[in-house]
Amino acid sequence: MKKKKSFRTIGRKNMHTKSLPIDLNCDMGESFGAFTVGTDDAIFPLITSCNIACGFHGGDPLHIEHTIKGALAHGVRIGAHPGYPDLQGFGRRYMRLQKDELKAVLRYQIAALKGMTESLGGRLAYVKPHGALYNTAAEDEREARIIAETIRDFGAGLALMGLAGSIMETEARKANIPFIAEAFADRRYGDNGKLLPRTVPGAVIHDPKAAAEQAWSIAINKGVYSNTGAWLPIDAQSLCVHGDNPTAVEILRALGRLGV
Amino acid sequence: MKKKKSFRTIGRKNMHTKSLPIDLNCDMGESFGAFTVGTDDAIFPLITSCNIACGFHGGDPLHIEHTIKGALAHGVRIGAHPGYPDLQGFGRRYMRLQKDELKAVLRYQIAALKGMTESLGGRLAYVKPHGALYNTAAEDEREARIIAETIRDFGAGLALMGLAGSIMETEARKANIPFIAEAFADRRYGDNGKLLPRTVPGAVIHDPKAAAEQAWSIAINKGVYSNTGAWLPIDAQSLCVHGDNPTAVEILRALGRLGV
Amino acid sequence: MKKKKSFRTIGRKNMHTKSLPIDLNCDMGESFGAFTVGTDDAIFPLITSCNIACGFHGGDPLHIEHTIKGALAHGVRIGAHPGYPDLQGFGRRYMRLQKDELKAVLRYQIAALKGMTESLGGRLAYVKPHGALYNTAAEDEREARIIAETIRDFGAGLALMGLAGSIMETEARKANIPFIAEAFADRRYGDNGKLLPRTVPGAVIHDPKAAAEQAWSIAINKGVYSNTGAWLPIDAQSLCVHGDNPTAVEILRALGRLGV
Amino acid sequence: MKKKKSFRTIGRKNMHTKSLPIDLNCDMGESFGAFTVGTDDAIFPLITSCNIACGFHGGDPLHIEHTIKGALAHGVRIGAHPGYPDLQGFGRRYMRLQKDELKAVLRYQIAALKGMTESLGGRLAYVKPHGALYNTAAEDEREARIIAETIRDFGAGLALMGLAGSIMETEARKANIPFIAEAFADRRYGDNGKLLPRTVPGAVIHDPKAAAEQAWSIAINKGVYSNTGAWLPIDAQSLCVHGDNPTAVEILRALGRLGV
Repeated sequence: MKKKKSFRTIGRKNMHTKSLPIDLNCDMGESFGAFTVGTDDAIFPLITSCNIACGFHGGDPLHIEHTIKGALAHGVRIGAHPGYPDLQGFGRRYMRLQKDELKAVLRYQIAALKGMTESLGGRLAYVKPHGALYNTAAEDEREARIIAETIRDFGAGLALMGLAGSIMETEARKANIPFIAEAFADRRYGDNGKLLPRTVPGAVIHDPKAAAEQAWSIAINKGVYSNTGAWLPIDAQSLCVHGDNPTAVEILRALGRLGV
Repeated sequence: MKKKKSFRTIGRKNMHTKSLPIDLNCDMGESFGAFTVGTDDAIFPLITSCNIACGFHGGDPLHIEHTIKGALAHGVRIGAHPGYPDLQGFGRRYMRLQKDELKAVLRYQIAALKGMTESLGGRLAYVKPHGALYNTAAEDEREARIIAETIRDFGAGLALMGLAGSIMETEARKANIPFIAEAFADRRYGDNGKLLPRTVPGAVIHDPKAAAEQAWSIAINKGVYSNTGAWLPIDAQSLCVHGDNPTAVEILRALGRLGV
Repeated sequence: MKKKKSFRTIGRKNMHTKSLPIDLNCDMGESFGAFTVGTDDAIFPLITSCNIACGFHGGDPLHIEHTIKGALAHGVRIGAHPGYPDLQGFGRRYMRLQKDELKAVLRYQIAALKGMTESLGGRLAYVKPHGALYNTAAEDEREARIIAETIRDFGAGLALMGLAGSIMETEARKANIPFIAEAFADRRYGDNGKLLPRTVPGAVIHDPKAAAEQAWSIAINKGVYSNTGAWLPIDAQSLCVHGDNPTAVEILRALGRLGV
Repeated sequence: MKKKKSFRTIGRKNMHTKSLPIDLNCDMGESFGAFTVGTDDAIFPLITSCNIACGFHGGDPLHIEHTIKGALAHGVRIGAHPGYPDLQGFGRRYMRLQKDELKAVLRYQIAALKGMTESLGGRLAYVKPHGALYNTAAEDEREARIIAETIRDFGAGLALMGLAGSIMETEARKANIPFIAEAFADRRYGDNGKLLPRTVPGAVIHDPKAAAEQAWSIAINKGVYSNTGAWLPIDAQSLCVHGDNPTAVEILRALGRLGV
């Protein structure tokens, strides 16, 4: 019988564990000048996709170039991680941009990542919106459509990565671009299938083992138990691990152990 | 006998004059948000190449996108116009960047322009450094080499546009990339073949007719008379007209009349 | 009988007209580096107060210093004109800032203007929020209160300038700081006493004579006729004239003629 | 006999050690938005003066306000720490600014710190240039003079803190403003009395005990031994400890022990 090649086998060459049949993505390259964010070098060996900042919410050309080279060296799939033009707010504040401006802001950032990656010998695989732009696009049809249509302009199979089951998925289908549905290992889901707000106690899963188990459940059983114990089916191709979560490396290592 | 197609015929579709056998380039897209620079819309019909700001010394995504669309609509050749990361100084102040950082700063800006142009259906033809970066690269081997090598990474025949006869030309040849030598219609040359410093009286040619005649001399006779009357041969493929020179449109129209 | 000294006599020394018993304010100093905004030098002789940009939505240190010196030379009262930290959007986009951040953003900008003015021999008289911050503060109690309380921290009689009759007036009173109520010469009012949205035909008064008459009506008769002809009492101490309105100078000159 | 109150007693209320007869200063408040720099909270109890970033090379309003409040809570003397307008380069790259612009850039930053500090109930005591601006001002008369003259404009005894024995000291005297001469605990001096360049092996003193001993020598014996063993007299009123040096806290604690 022909064994289907798992994503992990495709995306990573330095993995010491057996394949987990789901992609692991992490935000990278968000440092700016002398301002350092995250522990990118420790995380690269543990993931299969990286979302690289594009210089608007974080990231400057030198850090972006360094991160692209790191991804290429580790065989990690490269995505652009565009955000609102708000370095001081790290792209976490909603900004009301006109349609034309949002489109141009996205086109610029995606282009920068794409051209840098290609001129360094790689390929840009997908786009994942950052921060407040992600949250808005998960619920706002206008925002999701602008993102999907701008990605379509780049052609070459460029995909949108976004929240599984959200309006982003619908708009990606309408724009006829590939969609990579993602789910979260370290966040508790409510009965409505959405993430519990961070303000709700228990919304963030800090225990690496519990997070790894939720990841496993999403990857293998295609679903999770909500905070009330209801079963929620989730069809996700990628799992997000937050690089600025101090336990990120622990979670990723626990995932590796489960993967054996 | 087969008539060789002039550049103008290639590059422009809306020219009412006969062809001048030299390219005319102008800086464009330097507006930033509500801050407006230049009279781009009036100039598009009169030029064959435009150097579009990349967002570091001027230009924001929305203005860049608008300018690319304008260039495509007028059949004007598109170049990237990267500068030092200094919006407040408009890229006119020298900045001491490490080699790696300068390379990344260039790669980012070129990539942004290239990807934006391609996703809008066009093609990026060349790169012309801006302001203090241009002036440094015309005399500093290190700076010129970094520029040429970064352009080479993009392949696809991407050219460097720079001062005719300068170190930029040498480095472009070494890096094996096309070079577009440019000369200036509205600046007086010294006996050493360099532009007279702006501080020298008469360094800038304000009279549109005189500027047009110097342009004509460069384009047809392949040379100019210096400020002392010595003949200087110049081998240039493009003439720069400064869009922020109030008489730019006048000079371009005078050129058009000579072209008849 | 002792004649009361009008504001104009106090605030201006170069006025050729007789006094109009109301202050005229205009936004100034919004240029950034090589990016020029407005015609400040032409407007200074025609106004009594200027709202100087603080570097966040527009204005850089050099332009701010030049503007303060201009105001001092013309005897024009100086106000700080702080905005959201959004140069690209010119402070015209709403930004959701946490209370602490908004307070610090305001404190920084007011402090910069106050210290620059004082070190150049002048005095900061008031603070007028800019753009989207102004519009939000005119309707949102939280925003208005943060502004008023931050101004109070500076003491020394520093005043808030804002929309006459708005929540800003209420919050200024609560914070026990002086309030300068302003009205608009070049905008039509609706029956509810608010400005007609710019999207409504006739909302902006382009005719300098009509604008000057509305100004006169506000200054002398303490009210205006709404777009339906209803009389609206307005108690304003200052009239705003938009410097980026091409007819600003015309309106100001027409006001001067009425003032005779 | 009346015992003269030491600086430490004046400047600090939470010091558990006996007084060291010299001021200890450290750069603070350089974080920007989500980008965190330094370990300010751990350092406050160990110093007597803090140089607070002003938003141009680092620092944003919220972090600046937080740092001012921290300094006030710990009774630490407050200085403004202005730099070149270069966030990406953290003010460590030389920038060629015209005299007028440099003056305005300094005035703006000093004003921001002064006004924020005063509106929070404190007092700005001094100005210490940052990074490349400091290094330039230590050797370049023009730069030093502009700094001294801008400080003078603020009056109120505002002092300049700079390298002991440098041109900054001369210019402060000429401008008739107080000068706080500083020396370095963790840098080796050459025979010419200047710091050894960082590229020279041994230029940076990493051993906390050795650094503390050099500090002690400067504070008590008014001099240090150069790298060749020559005695160099130094007349300094303040010692700089670099907050981004990982051993800063160790050095400060070792100083505390020596101080017993």
